[in-house]
Amino acid sequence: MNFCSDNVAGVAPEIMAALVAANQEAAMPYGNDQYSQRLDAKFSELFETDVVVFPVATGTAANALALSVLVPPFGAIYCHAQSHINLDECGAPEFYTGGAKLVTLPGADGKIGATDLAAVLARAGAGVVHHVQPAAVSISQVSEAGTVYTPAEISQIAEVTHRHGLHLHLDGARFANAIVSLGCTPAEIAWRSGVDVLSFGATKNGAMAAEAVVFFNKQLAQTFSYRRKRSGHLFSKMRFLSVQLEAYIADGLWLKNAECANQMARKLAEGLKKLPFVRFCYPVEANEIFIELPKQASQGLLDEGFGFYPWEEGENLTTVRLVTAFNTREEDVTRFLEAAQRHCGGVSQPELTTNR
Amino acid sequence: MNFCSDNVAGVAPEIMAALVAANQEAAMPYGNDQYSQRLDAKFSELFETDVVVFPVATGTAANALALSVLVPPFGAIYCHAQSHINLDECGAPEFYTGGAKLVTLPGADGKIGATDLAAVLARAGAGVVHHVQPAAVSISQVSEAGTVYTPAEISQIAEVTHRHGLHLHLDGARFANAIVSLGCTPAEIAWRSGVDVLSFGATKNGAMAAEAVVFFNKQLAQTFSYRRKRSGHLFSKMRFLSVQLEAYIADGLWLKNAECANQMARKLAEGLKKLPFVRFCYPVEANEIFIELPKQASQGLLDEGFGFYPWEEGENLTTVRLVTAFNTREEDVTRFLEAAQRHCGGVSQPELTTNR
Amino acid sequence: MNFCSDNVAGVAPEIMAALVAANQEAAMPYGNDQYSQRLDAKFSELFETDVVVFPVATGTAANALALSVLVPPFGAIYCHAQSHINLDECGAPEFYTGGAKLVTLPGADGKIGATDLAAVLARAGAGVVHHVQPAAVSISQVSEAGTVYTPAEISQIAEVTHRHGLHLHLDGARFANAIVSLGCTPAEIAWRSGVDVLSFGATKNGAMAAEAVVFFNKQLAQTFSYRRKRSGHLFSKMRFLSVQLEAYIADGLWLKNAECANQMARKLAEGLKKLPFVRFCYPVEANEIFIELPKQASQGLLDEGFGFYPWEEGENLTTVRLVTAFNTREEDVTRFLEAAQRHCGGVSQPELTTNR
Amino acid sequence: MNFCSDNVAGVAPEIMAALVAANQEAAMPYGNDQYSQRLDAKFSELFETDVVVFPVATGTAANALALSVLVPPFGAIYCHAQSHINLDECGAPEFYTGGAKLVTLPGADGKIGATDLAAVLARAGAGVVHHVQPAAVSISQVSEAGTVYTPAEISQIAEVTHRHGLHLHLDGARFANAIVSLGCTPAEIAWRSGVDVLSFGATKNGAMAAEAVVFFNKQLAQTFSYRRKRSGHLFSKMRFLSVQLEAYIADGLWLKNAECANQMARKLAEGLKKLPFVRFCYPVEANEIFIELPKQASQGLLDEGFGFYPWEEGENLTTVRLVTAFNTREEDVTRFLEAAQRHCGGVSQPELTTNR
Repeated sequence: MNFCSDNVAGVAPEIMAALVAANQEAAMPYGNDQYSQRLDAKFSELFETDVVVFPVATGTAANALALSVLVPPFGAIYCHAQSHINLDECGAPEFYTGGAKLVTLPGADGKIGATDLAAVLARAGAGVVHHVQPAAVSISQVSEAGTVYTPAEISQIAEVTHRHGLHLHLDGARFANAIVSLGCTPAEIAWRSGVDVLSFGATKNGAMAAEAVVFFNKQLAQTFSYRRKRSGHLFSKMRFLSVQLEAYIADGLWLKNAECANQMARKLAEGLKKLPFVRFCYPVEANEIFIELPKQASQGLLDEGFGFYPWEEGENLTTVRLVTAFNTREEDVTRFLEAAQRHCGGVSQPELTTNR
Repeated sequence: MNFCSDNVAGVAPEIMAALVAANQEAAMPYGNDQYSQRLDAKFSELFETDVVVFPVATGTAANALALSVLVPPFGAIYCHAQSHINLDECGAPEFYTGGAKLVTLPGADGKIGATDLAAVLARAGAGVVHHVQPAAVSISQVSEAGTVYTPAEISQIAEVTHRHGLHLHLDGARFANAIVSLGCTPAEIAWRSGVDVLSFGATKNGAMAAEAVVFFNKQLAQTFSYRRKRSGHLFSKMRFLSVQLEAYIADGLWLKNAECANQMARKLAEGLKKLPFVRFCYPVEANEIFIELPKQASQGLLDEGFGFYPWEEGENLTTVRLVTAFNTREEDVTRFLEAAQRHCGGVSQPELTTNR
Repeated sequence: MNFCSDNVAGVAPEIMAALVAANQEAAMPYGNDQYSQRLDAKFSELFETDVVVFPVATGTAANALALSVLVPPFGAIYCHAQSHINLDECGAPEFYTGGAKLVTLPGADGKIGATDLAAVLARAGAGVVHHVQPAAVSISQVSEAGTVYTPAEISQIAEVTHRHGLHLHLDGARFANAIVSLGCTPAEIAWRSGVDVLSFGATKNGAMAAEAVVFFNKQLAQTFSYRRKRSGHLFSKMRFLSVQLEAYIADGLWLKNAECANQMARKLAEGLKKLPFVRFCYPVEANEIFIELPKQASQGLLDEGFGFYPWEEGENLTTVRLVTAFNTREEDVTRFLEAAQRHCGGVSQPELTTNR
Repeated sequence: MNFCSDNVAGVAPEIMAALVAANQEAAMPYGNDQYSQRLDAKFSELFETDVVVFPVATGTAANALALSVLVPPFGAIYCHAQSHINLDECGAPEFYTGGAKLVTLPGADGKIGATDLAAVLARAGAGVVHHVQPAAVSISQVSEAGTVYTPAEISQIAEVTHRHGLHLHLDGARFANAIVSLGCTPAEIAWRSGVDVLSFGATKNGAMAAEAVVFFNKQLAQTFSYRRKRSGHLFSKMRFLSVQLEAYIADGLWLKNAECANQMARKLAEGLKKLPFVRFCYPVEANEIFIELPKQASQGLLDEGFGFYPWEEGENLTTVRLVTAFNTREEDVTRFLEAAQRHCGGVSQPELTTNR
């Protein structure tokens, strides 16, 4: 029962089958295979517009490479203070851009707002030689708080972004979960909302290791292939990346997988809401749940062998993150809830009067 | 019949089976899975010494990351002018080192010599602030010319390298083919010959996408994991990299695969030697063959659908590279030789009197 | 009457004379001249300890080069959110470190506190591969708010810094002004307080273009000269940098100059305190004054030809910075105060009820 | 008597006087002073076309910054194997470009030829993702061998350069010496011959520390000011850089200075030609002389206190470089020649039969 992350799940059977099938014959390397060659067309269909797509193997590579074509070495990237690119990629955006700066914004529920962004950009010193130059905005969909930007929210951010001459990047490590949550089309929260470049994640939702960098603004893609090669992200046996992406978006697999993860998170959240002493940090809108619960309950669950990450430790309370995946089963959720009920039920009120 | 490269071959069945098997359960991400955890031990056994191993997915990543821990931004890397790191990685070593310089040496048959290296290092300006500072030597085993360094040759290079305070990196994209060719142990042409860090290739010899950076000098490995992460080469579902490497070195699979490739190259070479107008550019010591043959014969073979890369075009002659793989079949070799016989047989002598 | 910055002042006569004197004969280049050769000794005497000193021409170069030897590309530098290295160097620290991240702390009066720093470092993720690795703390003395760290404050910060295995850098663009303000010795707020590397500024206080990077921890200086050369900061006619620094610290010139600047700032502040509607943003402790005054008064002063920078514009109030220099004259201060009195006196209260 | 380099000479009196004069008043910083503001106009007049000019303090900064706007991180710069950017800047071009590669060409007398360049570019792999992408050609005028490119030679190189879509950079550390040698206008060997960006040197010819990066193709200058700032090469008291350049090109000072240096080199060469056992390595076309002379003569001259650099040591012969400067006096040349005559005269033939 592992709710640590959606990346603890393995490979979806459909994708593993596609990998095996793609192994039947020889294929030309470095993207000159049939799977890679037809990827632009497949993604153009998916997004209802002409796109250029580059497969890479990790989300960090997707994000850092995407940003590297948007931002000069003396540029600034505006992002949420809690964003993955800012906190969890060991400086990959800085490395790939040659030293650009991530300028962080606060924002409720893990999301930045268009008004705050506009205020920051108005004072950013564009054109003044002493300051890093505004170049890109990057938002995460699903956000680091497990919340989802609406198409309207993205459009507003995009409007501010483009008005100041910047480009908009969307880190879609959990893009499928957002689509399912919003019940919209991929186009709607991508280029129709003003996104220029998308890191389209598949790994967390059933691929082995595959992400697609999708360019809606094709002009921006010109130097991407050189940058991918020199960073070691051009695979010789590229077909095995491309076929994962193909299988992932074929026959709605990606949405089916995300639907399962989101549904299990919903069930989990519903159950947790009924428990005493449990407080939700953010709305549950996709497949991640952040809750505060009594320290001893958290410890008890870990001791029983349930997997999840303590996110922050207070004096009496622990904030934990629970993530469901494409293959989370209803019985896993039920068992967890039963155990949580047991552990939270045993907590006495007085212990919880103080916290960090 | 594709002799373009050993990377046109797919995944060895044993490795695909291991991938499928590793997909049965959940596993902790980022290397905290059982396959990754036992990799150091497996490779330490293979190399008969304590090593630290980092899996990555491409040879370029392996080389560039390895060099990044050996060389400061103001450093120099000494390598053969034809080496992969110098010509075929779009500047990856420069990117990963923060701008180090590759200083190239000539050398017969794709190999550098200890004497030349010593002469170059003697004049390199170590300690003089105007010059990039000597930091590493990098050699390729198998070399870009398909030749193999003997243990004695490596030892001599290592001696010069270490005497000047530099570190020795070995690009072993085709390390297995070299081992089989020399009939020696892995240890013998690695640490016993003075190699400090090895890019241990598996992709070209049957893996899907897996290479191991092997540190014999463990001190040097200290910052590697941060560099791997920030370059986007830390896989979340790392088990699928590690298990490839595990299956690759288990039960001698890697040597069996290389033995097949080398043997097929030998057969191919033997057949080609009998043909008129065919000249060998280098000794055939592993699984690569470089020959000069009449332009019309080369073209005729391509027209018939045989796959290989023309390496250089002269007026009447073409230099081509033929590479055999772990799954090249004897009948493929035979068919190619029959066709080559046909095409070379039809060439008349006078056409060949001039060439570039 | 220019209070824009201390860098609007020219060169102190003593330093110009030294430049002329150093021009009498030929001298070996790149620091092999007598002035450069004796600089370590001169600064060692000044700081009462053995130091290594590297002259450069700008404060940005001094800071970025100093940080580049303290911080790996995957490292983090902790600094005040308003610090010069964070806001006013167009990303120089990121460039020179190969992409390190500046992690900013808030702090009253432009200064960070040891307690806040300790809290941030405790959660910084040292040793966790996903996060940039804590490597250096950088503080500014005089701070960006014109305030001064006491020896005790620096010692506390240094204690936290070193306890976590980081190095402490001090951006001393206005180091002389701090010394004069504190009435202490240079040693006291440098190595005796735990500073490892100091950017010792001279340009703002009477030099033409000269700063010294002073290493108290000499181990850290090992790669500095290569980094200086490859960034284009090694001057061929180095004597003209070194002699500026020599003249600057000879016979207490640097303190005399700073004493003048600080005294004029004090006089200016005393006068401004008596004016209606003027609010001080920070304590005036060196040669910079930050005040809020009525917009129309600020504009009136600018229209009259007084030079200063509006720092931030509110609805009815403007924040301005006034900086005095080594050559500011008492009569300049008097004239400014008379004009300010005139302009502020004419403001009616009601206009000031609202502001940003 | 120092012939080590032209940078052992100090500052020309006219330039020192200009520095003193520019110190009379306050001036706005960072190029917002009158000297800096009128520099574009002054240089546009000098070059008979509209140019944009950026002052920096060192030749390495000028070259590296110029190249940084011409070349992407995955780009290649073509230059002579002996060029300053390749050998003597400790990797500055690599640092400033974010890791571009310098691809070297051989060439007699320190100069590359258009035909060789065309051949190299034809095989450079433009558009092929595995290879660094051709981006710029950089030539030195005066070359590292002390020779001078004719306008025709530059035009031919420029034609090849532009035909392949690259930009042409000229490292003019000794640009004045070349102008005087050729007897042409500055325009003639700059934009009229196809140069896009020029590092216009002044330091070696009488400035204290000042070089100008001159853009004939103004489009290319767009990001220069940010790159200059973030590398620490934007001076706060910029007037002291600009006024050096202004004085340098005013009233033909730069040409007068170079004329003196070249004339003294000519005299020196004429005298040396008459000596036994002295062999000239290259034609003497500007202010540098490279000769081979008996080891004992070289040593004898050094022992007598004459300054020059031994360039290469053979068994019996030493290659030395002699450089004259704007202030070399005829009597210095005469005294050196007398001494050389003495030392070479004493050499017996047999000692010289072998050499490296």
